[in-house]
Order: sequence, then C-alpha cells, then structure tokens
Amino acid sequence: MAKQAQIGVYGLGTMGSALALNLAERGNQVAVANREVDWLAPFVARSGDLAARIVPCETAESFVAALARPRVVVLMIPSGAPVDQMIDTLRPLLESGDMIVDAGNSDFHDTRRRSDMLASAGLHYVGMGVSGGAEGARHGPSMMVGGSEESWTRLRPLLEPSAARFGDDACIAHVGPDGAGHFVKTVHNGIEYADMQLIAEVYGLLRDGGGWGADRIAGLFESWNDGPLKSYLVATTAKVLAARDPATGNPVVDIIRDSAGQKGTGRWTVIEALRLGQSASVIEAAVGARGWSSDGAARQAASDVLGTPATAKLPARQDMEHGLLAARILAHAQGFRVMSVASDEFGWGLDLARVAEIWRAGCIIRSALLDDIAAAMRSAPPHGHLILAPQITATLRQVVPGLRRVVGWAMTNGLPVPALSAALAWHDSMRRARGSANLIQAQRDFFGAHGFQRIDSETGGDHGPWHTG
Amino acid sequence: MAKQAQIGVYGLGTMGSALALNLAERGNQVAVANREVDWLAPFVARSGDLAARIVPCETAESFVAALARPRVVVLMIPSGAPVDQMIDTLRPLLESGDMIVDAGNSDFHDTRRRSDMLASAGLHYVGMGVSGGAEGARHGPSMMVGGSEESWTRLRPLLEPSAARFGDDACIAHVGPDGAGHFVKTVHNGIEYADMQLIAEVYGLLRDGGGWGADRIAGLFESWNDGPLKSYLVATTAKVLAARDPATGNPVVDIIRDSAGQKGTGRWTVIEALRLGQSASVIEAAVGARGWSSDGAARQAASDVLGTPATAKLPARQDMEHGLLAARILAHAQGFRVMSVASDEFGWGLDLARVAEIWRAGCIIRSALLDDIAAAMRSAPPHGHLILAPQITATLRQVVPGLRRVVGWAMTNGLPVPALSAALAWHDSMRRARGSANLIQAQRDFFGAHGFQRIDSETGGDHGPWHTG
Repeated sequence: MAKQAQIGVYGLGTMGSALALNLAERGNQVAVANREVDWLAPFVARSGDLAARIVPCETAESFVAALARPRVVVLMIPSGAPVDQMIDTLRPLLESGDMIVDAGNSDFHDTRRRSDMLASAGLHYVGMGVSGGAEGARHGPSMMVGGSEESWTRLRPLLEPSAARFGDDACIAHVGPDGAGHFVKTVHNGIEYADMQLIAEVYGLLRDGGGWGADRIAGLFESWNDGPLKSYLVATTAKVLAARDPATGNPVVDIIRDSAGQKGTGRWTVIEALRLGQSASVIEAAVGARGWSSDGAARQAASDVLGTPATAKLPARQDMEHGLLAARILAHAQGFRVMSVASDEFGWGLDLARVAEIWRAGCIIRSALLDDIAAAMRSAPPHGHLILAPQITATLRQVVPGLRRVVGWAMTNGLPVPALSAALAWHDSMRRARGSANLIQAQRDFFGAHGFQRIDSETGGDHGPWHTG
Repeated sequence: MAKQAQIGVYGLGTMGSALALNLAERGNQVAVANREVDWLAPFVARSGDLAARIVPCETAESFVAALARPRVVVLMIPSGAPVDQMIDTLRPLLESGDMIVDAGNSDFHDTRRRSDMLASAGLHYVGMGVSGGAEGARHGPSMMVGGSEESWTRLRPLLEPSAARFGDDACIAHVGPDGAGHFVKTVHNGIEYADMQLIAEVYGLLRDGGGWGADRIAGLFESWNDGPLKSYLVATTAKVLAARDPATGNPVVDIIRDSAGQKGTGRWTVIEALRLGQSASVIEAAVGARGWSSDGAARQAASDVLGTPATAKLPARQDMEHGLLAARILAHAQGFRVMSVASDEFGWGLDLARVAEIWRAGCIIRSALLDDIAAAMRSAPPHGHLILAPQITATLRQVVPGLRRVVGWAMTNGLPVPALSAALAWHDSMRRARGSANLIQAQRDFFGAHGFQRIDSETGGDHGPWHTG
C-alpha cells in the first residue's frame, strides 16, 4: 500500500500550486486535485525533484482516499459558491474528525456559517488567510488561522515549516475561532489596498505635479526603501516603475491602462468597519479610487470641462517620504481598530500584537513599520488605539507635518489625493477633544426629536427649546 | 354601520401621529392603531377638530375591520424585525388585493424580500420613503413610493393631497417597483448625512479656527440662506445656533455633547455604493465622523499628545460659502450616481430628474440647489454624471476654487474637514483623464499575476516582464 499523504491541496491555480510545492518541500506527502483534471500532469511535470512527494488525484474520491486519517484537505479555489459546492462534494466522502481548510479569500461570514454547519457533522472547518502572492505561497507565506484549538494543534506541525520567517519567528498563528482568520486576512487586504493607493497618489504627484518620468520616480522609491518606508510594496513600486516594455522600449507603467481591478476584500473591510460603527476611511478612499478608475470615459469628459492641473514646484522629498509614512501608519491604525472592535463583537479574543508579528514577513504588506506596530500593540496602547501608543505617537508628531504640507500642496494644486487626505482628516478628527458633532445632534433633535446629551449632565435624552419661540 | 376608513396608520410615534393627522386633514377617514394601546386616547384628544376623522382601534383585528376594502394599511414603526412581526400579525387578517405600505426607513433588501413574499399571497406591498421629519409628515412630506403600478394607482389619490408642494407640483412620485422607494429614501438620507457633516465642518472652522461664538456663526448661516445655499438645513443651522439654553443662558449648541447618533440609512448608502462598485465618499466621511464622535475618551487622549490647532485668519467668507456649495453639489452627484447604477442593477428605471423634483419641498434636504439638479438631470447629462451637466459644470468651475482654498487652509492649520476634503478629492479624481491606477494594476500583476490592459490594445490580459530579469 502506497504511503498516504499527510495533507491534500484542492485547486492548482497560481496560489494552490505554489502552496502544494511549498508543503512538499518541507517533507510532506501532498495529495493534489483540480477541477480541470488535465492540469495535473503539467503540474507534476514542473514539480521537478518534488514530484515524488506529489500524489495527483483525478477524482474527489481518489483524492480523499489518498489522505491519511484524520484527513486534512486544503481548498485553494475561488471564494463564494465554488467553496460551498466543494464542501458539498467532499462532505459525504469525509469522516468525523476530518478537516477542511479554506485557504482562499472567503467572506468571514461565510466561514462562520460553514464552520457551524460542518461542526454539526463532526468535521473541523478552518478559515485560513494566506498572504504573499504566488512567491509567498511557494517559499513562505504569512498564514492567519481561524478555527478550533484542536484544529490548530493538528495543523500547526503541517503548516508551520512552510510559513515565512521573521528572524526565528514563523509567520503563522491561530488568531481565533471560526471566521477570525478570514477576517484578519480581509483587513490585511484592506490595508494593502490603502498602502497601494497611497503609493499611487505619491506617484501621481511626482508624475503629474512634478513632471517626473517613471525611471526617476523608481529611483526615489528605491531610495525610500532604505529608510523607514522599507517594505515589500515600496520595493515592488521601484521595480515595476523601472521595468521596460519589450515591445516599445517605454516604461511598462506608461503603457498600462489606468483602470484597477478589485475583488472583494477591500470593500468588505470598509463594509464591516461601517457595520461595527467604525470607519476605515483611508481604505474606503482606496476602494473608491479603484472604482472611479474604471469610469475613464467620464473622467476624460470631466477633464475637458473642469480643468487639468499644471505642474508646479513639488513639496520637499522628505515631506513626501514623511507624508507617505504618516498616512501608512494611520491606515494601519484604522485597520487595527476595526479588528479590535470585531474581536469584541464576535468574541474572538484576537491578539493584535501577534497579528502584527505574523505580518512582518511573507505577506504583501510586510514592512519595517509592522515591527514597530507589533511592539506598540504589545504595549497595550491607551484606549486600544495604535495612534496613542507612545512610540507611534512620537513618530506621528514627526511625520504628520510632512503629510500636512503634501496634502495642502496637492489640494491647492488640484491633484487628487483621496487616501492621503482621508488619513490626515482622520488624524485631525481624532485629536480634536471637542468636535463639531454637537451641531449635528442639535439638528437631529430640531427636526427629528432625537434628543441629545448635555455636557453638564449624564442622563441624556434632553431636548432643545427649538419650537417654543 | 359606521363609515369605513379609507386608510389605516399603524404606529403613533412622532412620524405616524403626524402622518395620520395630515391624512385626516385632507379629508380621509383614518383608522389608527398602536402597539401600546394607551397611546390611542391621548392621540385622539390632541387631534382637535380632526378627531371626527380618526378611528382609534385597540386590536389588529378591529383595525383591519375598520378599513374599507381593498384595504390600505400604512406601517410607521421601527424598521427591521418589528416590520416582519407586524406583517405576520396582519397577513392572516388581510385578503387578496389588500395593501401594506411600509412608510419607515427599511433596508430596501428587506422590502424586496417582503414584496416577493406577499405577492405570492396576493397582497400588495409598497415600500415608501417619507421625509420631512415630524413637521413634514404633519403638513406635507416628500414621499418616494416603491411598488407595482396598480398599488400606485390606488395610493395616489389617498396620499397626493397630503404631500408637500413645490409650486403646483406635489412632492410624491412612484419611483419604481419593489425596493426602489426605500432605496431612494436611503440615498436621500445619505445625502442628508453629508450635508449635515459639511455644515458641521464649516461651523467647526469658524468656531475653532476663527474663534467665533455661536451667535456670530448663526448670523453667517442666516445670510447664506438668502443665497445659493438656501435650504432647510442651512436655515435650521442658523436657528439651532441662535437658540439659548433656558437653564444657563448659553447657546444650546455649546452645552450639547459632541457625540452624534445614527441609525442605518447613512451607512447603508455607503455600503450599497461599494457593493455596486461605486463610492459615496462624502457620505462615508459623514458616517465615519459620527462614528468617531462617539470615541470621545480617545479623542481627548489624542488631543493631549498629538496637539491642538491654534486659531488663525479665516478664509474669505465667500470661499467658505462657495466651498460649502461645491461640496454639497459633489455629495449630491455621488448620491445620484449611486441611484443611477442601482437602477440599472435592479431594473428599476428610476427617473432621477423626478427624484430631484420631489426633493425640492417637504424633505430634510430640500434646497435651492435641488431645483438646479432637477433641471440638470432632466437634460440627460453626459455619461449620466451630474457633474457633467453643463449648468452644474459651470457652477462647479465657479465655486470649486473656494472649496480648494478652504480645504487647503483647514488642512494646513490642522482642522478636520473629512467630508469637505473627500468632496474635493473626488472632484479632482474625476477630472483627471489619466489617473495613477496604472501603477496599482502593475503591482497587482507583479505579485498576483492579475494581468492588465495596454493602452495600445483592446484585448487585456497582458503581463509585465517583471520576473524575467
């Protein structure tokens, strides 16, 4: 009898293939299957030396049969209906104690539902976020595991060797039960949206405000990657800006249409923030900007009638570097705030310092900043707000003035900075001890009799003398 | 046998009481009922001359029995579960051809579901938005009716006499089937959130940036109400700012806690925009600002460590007037965009010019601007965008420079303007023919192999030479 596989990966797309090879490289016997059966042979062929640890299976039945019990099945397939269909297919083939791990970008509400449903059948269900793109999945992703303690005990030895390393620390953690892993991954992606948009806004200032070419901008980002902005996304920005189109010899970015796609996780982050009474406004600006990017015909028409900004003298480079860092900190602070409130709401007990730690390597938003954030969250900041952790506060005091100058310059000169300005607006809102919502509450009482709380009373439910005059 | 009532109103809260009296005043015999039966007698007592047309009913059975057939039952009760419970109560008492009108602020998804469910029982279901607060409901609200043509034919003669008037035009319309009425009302409320926040931001600039007292700010808003900002909310702002607290003699706004409540409609607008691939970023800023307003302890702590802005020389008054008008136009433009895309998505065939027309009187956001918007939408603006309608474009060219100066001033001086800056950022994004999303798409292809479209090709799915070097 052939040696049975310790783990199975269903779905041999970019991410699934990479993860299967990663698991095999770490000594696991890996059963693989795919909806399109003809993907199997090419996958084995390009597995090289690892092919001996790959067990290709043409049917769901043979895939399940190839797995040692209790079985561990990892799904790396599109989120939504395909996951439900796959669960329906696998469920009659599995036995009590077996485990399904959904490693795609599923909506955490779906993960909660599926966890409940499968628990009643004695099956373990794990929603796991995997970040790092194809390269990360192949050589070490960051993994955010949501599920029972028992699931984690069994999964950990299988997955931990394949995770990214930050020093000696494996970038994998059991973040909480049921949907916690997918929620954390959703917020990770939301922060990724924000970070990419902030970078794109600075790029736009340099290109349209300063008249810089792609090569010159690449050099600036490359230099920033040696400082406090050091991160995968800043490094990637330098690389893609420097790349040349083989067909035309022009910078590749200059021949790419200015229309960005999106899947669900960015908008899910914003929607969940709103449902929780929060606002992830920097992430919202990033999601919105992608949406507007697809409305090119209207933008062309608007530029004809509403004017086009001219180039001008750019802000100081250090202001731009500081501005990007400040906005990046604020975007992370909003994301961590949303996770904190969600953890309370859903009873997950998220260890947010640990979340920051496992984002320090492997994932798309890995950065020097995340090491600082991990330390800040470990210090239990006042009111749970990252911006109130002393070391983060000190950095903000240093870099927000640059953000202020960059945003002021951009808005004065007519260049769009929706995410940079949302970050600054949030900073300025949060540091105002007495805001202007008292006027809103007065209006709500005036026309809707909603009542208000007096500053000199704890009772609430007071009304103004509006209609007595 | 007593004369039967033409219409029934269930729910005698602020809005239901007012609407019932309005309907009675226009000659209808109105059956009324309420969960708390002891509200009935006081309601009749304060109905004065109209008491003869009010039929108080202590039970759901007597309420239904009091109505002429086919029956029309208007629910004015809290949205969510109470509506489902009320439907469950009424359903066995009603007969085929009877109609339930939900006049509360229900989620339009619920309205769609309830419409389908009741249609299968032969009952008509209408989701109707009613705006204008208690005063509007009593003397003439704006009403947005969603339901079948047949429902509208029967409802119109009952409701139209009670609607607000703009000149000779009754501010009521059948905007579309099933959830269309509640969706339009949701977006109305989203715009209301934005308008209130924009006003509160300008108030904050005057108070904290200029050091102005409430009376002086009241005078400025009062003067603005004679110009292009003329509106219910600007007039209301002047009134609430001028009001004095009888207990202390201070301006009432100064003794109101700066924490604004919210129900669902603001965030629903933002969430639906995102689901439709759009962004209502000005409304999001308003919803977010209300959320942050409730985090007072953290704001106090942040003000201690992140600094407090000093007063400075204010921008010109005309810049502030222009800035508020520009941002108000842009907030409306986002709302109308969301309705346009929703209409396509759900097959509602919304007449957006008619929507603007019925918002010109009766509702909370009624304003001089809405008359201009109605005309602009009637002219079928390019690409369906309000900002591209020639008359709106001309106004924007005149007033956006003021918005730019105000936002630049506020952000430079450290005063929070989340909604004003979101409006400007959207304007500047929409008028940029070539945005910076090309960089985002390059990054997505670099780490996720998502592909991109070349500007010199229509095919799409190209990839960069990122990993070949």
